[in-house]
Amino acid sequence: MDPNSQDVSSDVKKGQGRGQDSRPESKEAKLPPKSSFSEWYHELLKAAEIIDVRYPVKGMCVWFPFGFALRRSVYGIIRELLDPDHYETQFPLLIPEQEFMKEADHIKGFEDEVYWVTHGGTSPLDVKLALRPTSETAIYPMFKLWIRSHADLPLKVYQIINTFRYETKHTRPLIRLREITSFKEAHTAHATWDEAAEQVEVAVKRYAEFYRRLAVPFLESKRPSWDKFPGADYSIALDVVMPDGRTLQVGTAHLLGTNFARTYEITYEDQKGEQQYVNQSCYGISERCIAALISVHGDDRGLILPWLVAPTQVVIVPIIFGEKEPILEACRQLEGALKQDRIRVVLDGSDERPGAKFYKWELRGVPIRLELGPRDIKNGVVTMVRRDGVKKTVPISDVRSAVVKEAEDLSAVLYSRALELMKSKIKDVHNVEEAREQTLIGVARAAWCGSVDCGHEMEDRVGANLLGEARDGQQQPDRPCLICGKQTFATTYLARQY
Amino acid sequence: MDPNSQDVSSDVKKGQGRGQDSRPESKEAKLPPKSSFSEWYHELLKAAEIIDVRYPVKGMCVWFPFGFALRRSVYGIIRELLDPDHYETQFPLLIPEQEFMKEADHIKGFEDEVYWVTHGGTSPLDVKLALRPTSETAIYPMFKLWIRSHADLPLKVYQIINTFRYETKHTRPLIRLREITSFKEAHTAHATWDEAAEQVEVAVKRYAEFYRRLAVPFLESKRPSWDKFPGADYSIALDVVMPDGRTLQVGTAHLLGTNFARTYEITYEDQKGEQQYVNQSCYGISERCIAALISVHGDDRGLILPWLVAPTQVVIVPIIFGEKEPILEACRQLEGALKQDRIRVVLDGSDERPGAKFYKWELRGVPIRLELGPRDIKNGVVTMVRRDGVKKTVPISDVRSAVVKEAEDLSAVLYSRALELMKSKIKDVHNVEEAREQTLIGVARAAWCGSVDCGHEMEDRVGANLLGEARDGQQQPDRPCLICGKQTFATTYLARQY
Repeated sequence: MDPNSQDVSSDVKKGQGRGQDSRPESKEAKLPPKSSFSEWYHELLKAAEIIDVRYPVKGMCVWFPFGFALRRSVYGIIRELLDPDHYETQFPLLIPEQEFMKEADHIKGFEDEVYWVTHGGTSPLDVKLALRPTSETAIYPMFKLWIRSHADLPLKVYQIINTFRYETKHTRPLIRLREITSFKEAHTAHATWDEAAEQVEVAVKRYAEFYRRLAVPFLESKRPSWDKFPGADYSIALDVVMPDGRTLQVGTAHLLGTNFARTYEITYEDQKGEQQYVNQSCYGISERCIAALISVHGDDRGLILPWLVAPTQVVIVPIIFGEKEPILEACRQLEGALKQDRIRVVLDGSDERPGAKFYKWELRGVPIRLELGPRDIKNGVVTMVRRDGVKKTVPISDVRSAVVKEAEDLSAVLYSRALELMKSKIKDVHNVEEAREQTLIGVARAAWCGSVDCGHEMEDRVGANLLGEARDGQQQPDRPCLICGKQTFATTYLARQY
Repeated sequence: MDPNSQDVSSDVKKGQGRGQDSRPESKEAKLPPKSSFSEWYHELLKAAEIIDVRYPVKGMCVWFPFGFALRRSVYGIIRELLDPDHYETQFPLLIPEQEFMKEADHIKGFEDEVYWVTHGGTSPLDVKLALRPTSETAIYPMFKLWIRSHADLPLKVYQIINTFRYETKHTRPLIRLREITSFKEAHTAHATWDEAAEQVEVAVKRYAEFYRRLAVPFLESKRPSWDKFPGADYSIALDVVMPDGRTLQVGTAHLLGTNFARTYEITYEDQKGEQQYVNQSCYGISERCIAALISVHGDDRGLILPWLVAPTQVVIVPIIFGEKEPILEACRQLEGALKQDRIRVVLDGSDERPGAKFYKWELRGVPIRLELGPRDIKNGVVTMVRRDGVKKTVPISDVRSAVVKEAEDLSAVLYSRALELMKSKIKDVHNVEEAREQTLIGVARAAWCGSVDCGHEMEDRVGANLLGEARDGQQQPDRPCLICGKQTFATTYLARQY
């Protein structure tokens, strides 16, 4: 039979007395409800074995094996998106003090947060070494050596590495860390400012595609001047609206212009034989992308992972009544067939009760569960349960195509559900009072004339942060700036930020 | 035509007046001959763009894009070999002083080499943090939390991370570094000493398979007690004989027994309900594997890379006489066909002369070069040149299968050539004088009774290091120990080590 047949007879299955609709009794602790977001988040990271926070240094965490498998598939997408026109490289972690201290704005932005290595063995070092909080000052002295002529441009590199920030604020796993274990930073050099600015747009498009694949919707803003990257002309940021209404910055792209090139003397010979400064951009994503992925999709039962990144995409649970071996054999055949399609499938042949298995694999967000019992085998069908609860009976001969179809449907459902949820948390506001109320529960969209004074005053009076000029909002009619009343079509998001 | 046809008509091609047999004139600096190994090695790392040593901290280097692509494919093999029964994880870089200082032997082995973070921002830290020189002291406090019962065993994890050693000796790129950027360390816990010891053997077998895939032969020794890993019961090491006759340790596996378990209180409840210490092993490989790969196979023209790890596996060089477009079109078709087979192919359509292209891609070790000119097209053939110089004419319809066959042949040739070379550098010696002479040019194999006193005396008098009891030597007849004269069948290698 053609596995790509469209003729999959399926129907919504009513409960069949197996108890899989009722929460199974289990020794496992139940998650707090997602409505208690902070507790739910912390408990889920532990229960689903993503991140272990018990490492004995504040703000530094351990990736559990399952969490790291998720990280691998998520960062595999990043590599896939960057590899066609970027080179992956790796630069040293430690930056000598004199290089780190060259760019004045950059220092100001980071100096309070830098960890310093001062000793090797028992001897003090001649030159203090900074643990990179970000790698501009490690990479650009090398760009100076690598770039000679216009033929070397554009140069686009990235690395996936650990960075360090001595955070004095409250730390949070995956969100605010002292060791960011999974920083993907890209750095580019171009002949002109326009080309570098164009690269910023390319970066934002790649990140948009990345989050599309994670089924995570986001807001896109041009950060206000006082919140741009230290040393940048401007910064574009992506923010995800978290379940509690606060926003999480999950990606940034910065136009550096010639600011760093002047400091680090990165020049190229142009076609006329003259030395010119390069124009640069840089853009980054950290493990916050995984925090967003988890937080946006998960439910009271645990993770819900899109097919593309799920470490286990399908779990097969044998439903044993009577003779065990024929059922296990049918499950093994099913497993083999799915493996042939390179599907990441696990056959859970352990001795636990089916209910306990359902609980365990739901907690870990497995997109599709297949159940196979004696009645199914007799009828030549498999019971297919999607992680969002949709349940179908599928002829066993059609399972391979049905699984792929349901996986796609699930990702589409996750995205549209997340998008609806995000929209529901954003509201247009027309005065400071409305903005203050809205930012207690979500994101406010407000008219802002764009002046720094009005921006600061808005932040102070609303008690929330300006995300900056909205780049993805529908064109708004002219409205009065929330502070000065000047007519403007420009819109900013206001939110409490993680 | 069947691309898998065995009927590939091919013959060794004589020079056809294209000049590809003579060294092309080029603006590129020529490599020193490989017989000047140290100069050749350093110049090759730069010319082939593997590693940039110009980073402004001694012993810390930058991976060039090409070097990093090689690292990715090499470490891809490591992951492939470990993933079936190990979990990949990631633990923090920074280790609090009190954890680091718990295991006495371990401290003694590393305390002179540890970098210390003492400040965050401008404030001194309450607790000094060590940059991991290796991760036992970061991982085992977590193993204590992760392991509860016999059901949790065996536990096998690995991570690929950067480690730091404040080397006071002369540093060398990829070989002796202050930042080891690519340390793969695996850590396992087992119920019994025997199981942990068995895991050490499994690790050695995996490493052997890894080096087989790199076509790199090695020696296998049980390190003498004074050279084992600090805190281990014993250490097994793999050493590659470098072109200058010195050995490079390229992999180690350590039996830790319960030494760390006692210090870090890692226990499990056995089947009788009693608490037992776990038995542990750990094993590691660093970017030295790439140093060995480069050094063993390369020649006066540059790198020679085995097919499996070459970032570019095939380069197509159009030989333009007369009309350009039909030739380029034929090259593009060839490129497309090879890409369909997931071969990493580059069509070098640049304006450089063919000779300059040959030089460039030979330098980078591309296993197979395909040349296509008007005469080839007319005759329906392609000229195929293997990186070791073997040249053939292949019908264009057979190229896909011919490329795969030649790639396999090249790897086999590389391995057997390397094995012969290694054997030629090892000699049995029968007294201290012979040992001293042999270790100036290669490795000496000598009888050693196994006593510590004889071992130390042998090292002193020979002026070289004992690699320890040879585990891969043919069984030797009893011979007198080089020092005390006692009859023994045990054999040790003696060598100058990197």
